[in-house]
Amino acid sequence: MTHENRKAYLDKHHAFTVRTEEVPKPGPYEVVIRIMANGICGSDIHFYSEGRLGNFIVQEPYVPGHECSGEITSVGSNVNHLVVGDLVTIEPGIPCRTCRHCRIGRYNLCSEVVFLSAPPMNGTFCDFICIRSDMVHRLPKGLSFEEGAMAEPAAVAVHAVNRAKLGSGKTVAVVGAGPIGQFTIQAIKAAGGGRVICLDTNQARLEFAARIGADETINPTDICTEELKDVADVVFETAGADRATASLFAYTRPGGCAVQVGWPESNIVNMDISRFIEKELDYVAVHRYANAFEAAIQWISDGRIDAKSMITHRFELEQIAEAFAFTKNNPQEVMKTVVLNKM
Amino acid sequence: MTHENRKAYLDKHHAFTVRTEEVPKPGPYEVVIRIMANGICGSDIHFYSEGRLGNFIVQEPYVPGHECSGEITSVGSNVNHLVVGDLVTIEPGIPCRTCRHCRIGRYNLCSEVVFLSAPPMNGTFCDFICIRSDMVHRLPKGLSFEEGAMAEPAAVAVHAVNRAKLGSGKTVAVVGAGPIGQFTIQAIKAAGGGRVICLDTNQARLEFAARIGADETINPTDICTEELKDVADVVFETAGADRATASLFAYTRPGGCAVQVGWPESNIVNMDISRFIEKELDYVAVHRYANAFEAAIQWISDGRIDAKSMITHRFELEQIAEAFAFTKNNPQEVMKTVVLNKM
Amino acid sequence: MTHENRKAYLDKHHAFTVRTEEVPKPGPYEVVIRIMANGICGSDIHFYSEGRLGNFIVQEPYVPGHECSGEITSVGSNVNHLVVGDLVTIEPGIPCRTCRHCRIGRYNLCSEVVFLSAPPMNGTFCDFICIRSDMVHRLPKGLSFEEGAMAEPAAVAVHAVNRAKLGSGKTVAVVGAGPIGQFTIQAIKAAGGGRVICLDTNQARLEFAARIGADETINPTDICTEELKDVADVVFETAGADRATASLFAYTRPGGCAVQVGWPESNIVNMDISRFIEKELDYVAVHRYANAFEAAIQWISDGRIDAKSMITHRFELEQIAEAFAFTKNNPQEVMKTVVLNKM
Amino acid sequence: MTHENRKAYLDKHHAFTVRTEEVPKPGPYEVVIRIMANGICGSDIHFYSEGRLGNFIVQEPYVPGHECSGEITSVGSNVNHLVVGDLVTIEPGIPCRTCRHCRIGRYNLCSEVVFLSAPPMNGTFCDFICIRSDMVHRLPKGLSFEEGAMAEPAAVAVHAVNRAKLGSGKTVAVVGAGPIGQFTIQAIKAAGGGRVICLDTNQARLEFAARIGADETINPTDICTEELKDVADVVFETAGADRATASLFAYTRPGGCAVQVGWPESNIVNMDISRFIEKELDYVAVHRYANAFEAAIQWISDGRIDAKSMITHRFELEQIAEAFAFTKNNPQEVMKTVVLNKM
Repeated sequence: MTHENRKAYLDKHHAFTVRTEEVPKPGPYEVVIRIMANGICGSDIHFYSEGRLGNFIVQEPYVPGHECSGEITSVGSNVNHLVVGDLVTIEPGIPCRTCRHCRIGRYNLCSEVVFLSAPPMNGTFCDFICIRSDMVHRLPKGLSFEEGAMAEPAAVAVHAVNRAKLGSGKTVAVVGAGPIGQFTIQAIKAAGGGRVICLDTNQARLEFAARIGADETINPTDICTEELKDVADVVFETAGADRATASLFAYTRPGGCAVQVGWPESNIVNMDISRFIEKELDYVAVHRYANAFEAAIQWISDGRIDAKSMITHRFELEQIAEAFAFTKNNPQEVMKTVVLNKM
Repeated sequence: MTHENRKAYLDKHHAFTVRTEEVPKPGPYEVVIRIMANGICGSDIHFYSEGRLGNFIVQEPYVPGHECSGEITSVGSNVNHLVVGDLVTIEPGIPCRTCRHCRIGRYNLCSEVVFLSAPPMNGTFCDFICIRSDMVHRLPKGLSFEEGAMAEPAAVAVHAVNRAKLGSGKTVAVVGAGPIGQFTIQAIKAAGGGRVICLDTNQARLEFAARIGADETINPTDICTEELKDVADVVFETAGADRATASLFAYTRPGGCAVQVGWPESNIVNMDISRFIEKELDYVAVHRYANAFEAAIQWISDGRIDAKSMITHRFELEQIAEAFAFTKNNPQEVMKTVVLNKM
Repeated sequence: MTHENRKAYLDKHHAFTVRTEEVPKPGPYEVVIRIMANGICGSDIHFYSEGRLGNFIVQEPYVPGHECSGEITSVGSNVNHLVVGDLVTIEPGIPCRTCRHCRIGRYNLCSEVVFLSAPPMNGTFCDFICIRSDMVHRLPKGLSFEEGAMAEPAAVAVHAVNRAKLGSGKTVAVVGAGPIGQFTIQAIKAAGGGRVICLDTNQARLEFAARIGADETINPTDICTEELKDVADVVFETAGADRATASLFAYTRPGGCAVQVGWPESNIVNMDISRFIEKELDYVAVHRYANAFEAAIQWISDGRIDAKSMITHRFELEQIAEAFAFTKNNPQEVMKTVVLNKM
Repeated sequence: MTHENRKAYLDKHHAFTVRTEEVPKPGPYEVVIRIMANGICGSDIHFYSEGRLGNFIVQEPYVPGHECSGEITSVGSNVNHLVVGDLVTIEPGIPCRTCRHCRIGRYNLCSEVVFLSAPPMNGTFCDFICIRSDMVHRLPKGLSFEEGAMAEPAAVAVHAVNRAKLGSGKTVAVVGAGPIGQFTIQAIKAAGGGRVICLDTNQARLEFAARIGADETINPTDICTEELKDVADVVFETAGADRATASLFAYTRPGGCAVQVGWPESNIVNMDISRFIEKELDYVAVHRYANAFEAAIQWISDGRIDAKSMITHRFELEQIAEAFAFTKNNPQEVMKTVVLNKM
């Protein structure tokens, strides 16, 4: 076992520096994980290219990454449910576990939550990380590390589906065919949704959606707006687009549910409240996830979520600068990029 | 028993004409009700003063009114659950009972629904009305007719509370202290809500709210906007105001629920989607009511909803023109106007 | 088109007589269906072999059958949503549509419900049936009549799954590998359940379950009782056995849900209330179905429920006596028997 | 401030010894509370008179009590939400906060839970206790210590009501008019239940129930069993009686919900599964509480739960032996006994 711990620091000038630091030692409730694979998330790319996302700003060099998998190399004295050698993934939003939101099971809303890779907090583009053991989920035998790293984005989709209360056999639409949209399509199918319709303006991504499980694809630029009414009982916005968000109450059928997964470009969006009332809709927001990793890992493991097909590009940790640059510059071509920690 | 049936027709020139027509006879599944009292709804005033509301337009004279009570005077041959002499109120949105929405219990979303007093459909400002017996709810002994007429607006509040899934002991805010706001305050208390905060810019209405059950009242013009954040776990918009609607996601606490009861002035409202996601809110619309009359009648009957105090002005049917004019011209003074069918 | 209407009457002496009657004509809200296929239900076999089931007793000859499919041959004057030539299945429990249970969407609890084939009400082992059009569900193109006839037992499984509020990725056990158990296994998978474990004492049926989708099968006679604790988060009793019912609270994990689908042999069963409380379980009953045909048809159509594999034996209507005798006498061999109306 | 810490130890011979020990010091996440009042729970009486309850056995002397209130006298270095002088009550089931049940908000099902006063764990009949700060709930100004001590039994009733999903205006029955029954009656009213019917065979307790809020009382010995069918939509068993438990599915109306709050005398009870299915009931168990103290404290504070009237007898800590003896020997007369720590 190596005792080197490479950590890939990103600075505000979009540059990466790989530093070698000591391998951490676990506290009594912690474990140390040797990281084997990391996915690049859209938020990582935001910090890379713009130096900020929402209220988080890159001021000092920090380590990005929060879609990871690895192997446990040491466990703290009070850790009972994990042992050295376990293959695991990390749930990267660390909550306090005692506040009002944590107590009722909505720990993603904990005001004390610390999120790996939200600067200045370091993330998982490194060789070893020390983390509270309750944030670590075991991976079943047979899952590859790159598949394990997909549990995190899959968990977003699982949580979205849980929030939507899908209902057996309902028609569902997914607006946006990016990575989260593609995971959402699969999570809907896994969770019992009926016919799934995917909407996007990018034809290649629509074709990807059709391969991954969408029953129908619609390019909204192809048809007149009036036809795009009452598309589905449940509609997920995953595009993070103002226009798609503004159309949600038109797309959703009377009595249905609109689900906001993506963050629109603008904070404020023009919403058709008149339609919202007339149809007596539910509109639910999705903020990361809570209690979603268990199903995410299971569905990746049993093939309901095809994590392998989601990964279109692979790099090694030493190539992290290239990995980020390529992912940023080829949004149409890349679905998910994975960085592997070959040692 | 009189055989005269006065019906108060409203035309597009804001004028009323009381005509005398025959007393109707019930079909096999219908009952005839002698109307004794009617509340004037905000929608009645809209048709009176503007000749239209949404897609409904006053083209020919029609009979307004849908908040009524009365006594059954004859029953159809297939009606088993009601008898002559029963004191009743009417649920005025008549659904098909067989479509998809009707089957799942959300019959307020039935696309075939016919609503009494939505022109050209006649309403209940008359002496006798013939109606499908399944739309008729029996009133308990001891309730006055004017209280019984309040079951309909109370049902809006009950349905709003049902849609909100209030939860034991939550802090609740009601934006808007008009009639629906006041009924909502009482329904929240009846349904197990905790501390209730009422927001309105009209001081007299805030005082009314305090008397009817609000634990705290806030005039938003008195304090800076920044303080009006995270006011309550569940927030009901009953003001029908664009600005109040646009503030909902600021007022509602993380993990909470915003409920749209009022129709804003504009179809499109600027909503703060960024806050909606960050707080992972639920936002639910309320469209009239379904399965709400039972609780509305019970809560009026057991005093949880003080219907009598809601009624500030009374007129007789022959004075219907004065009743409408007064209600329209004195919005600050009037909470609910009731028109009584003295015969 | 034939104008003959063969109807297969069962008397209390277990004998069938096929009589030829007139083809019925639809009332204004009715349709006439040419029946093409019927499944034999366990309840049909009960009436056949014992002359009674619960409070229903065969006193006069009546027509059994309520798992059917066919084609519409005439429609009433007020029927808008169906046309001649539509391929359809029938939802056989006809509710009043106006009582309290019907209004809230639980029309299976309507006290006025009339169930086709519950004597003396005639069922669907005939060539033509006249029925209220709201009880008729259209089948998608490409579905065979024998698959369409499986919508009814599949709907039981769909309703069971809806009642259970399955939740993404939960471990589920199905006790009993008879027809309803097999449909339930498939409905669980379709509705988003995780690992499914099937328990039965019949090895052939367990193998059927493994083929149809169970991830694990357990023969409870093979292992000691103590091991059969906390088997799954959600446990469905479909065996209709006292002993299986009595074991439900042992099989179900803390915080989980036990679902009673089968009718145990005895009315009264010894339940372990101490465990029920200690684990804080939910226990929910399933009585036929409501709002379940839509998903049942969809899942048969998209292959999530493999209706074809469920059908192990086929007969023609003229052979109905053989069909019943064979089904009764070969419980281990028969999963579902279908009777086809060749004309 | 005294530095004496009296602790009342109960041994297996039903005898109390008050020992004086040191006042504890808080760890970083703990607080020390000066206890001012304790209610005597039925479980305390079980340990007192029988030396055991379920799997818990009095082997060494231990301190009973878990319905307490007091004042914070010192706080650990990492405690931010509480300060010295805060008036508080304790939630006595201490969960791990990280297991699967804790994460989803059902921490009462945590398998690691430690419950104060479940021997050998010491409870709250003492002057000072040191406890993890997240188990401490602040009491509002104006509440007396004896009212504050009632938060714990009130929380059982709140949790029962939360588990039942009461629904606006439903008719509710409470079987058993002991302390938990009386708290449940009040919690039902507070949570929006409609008419409440209380059943008990003890006339004095029924009269207590009528004073505390029951709309109707029934003594089941007064009427024939056949009449006691379909009593209410939601039925709470709080009597802890086999016979009452066995009657639940008869008492509950079709589509309704039966709630098991009491522990029946026997582990195994004969349940009418046939009725359970026919009526398609829900049956839910209640095991202590989770996330219920907030509403319990609020409802005691705003008078919806009249804690003061529940307390029928008061003793001082030095009289603890008399308090237990009197409570045990006068079950009909005592509703709740409170022991006050006068110093």
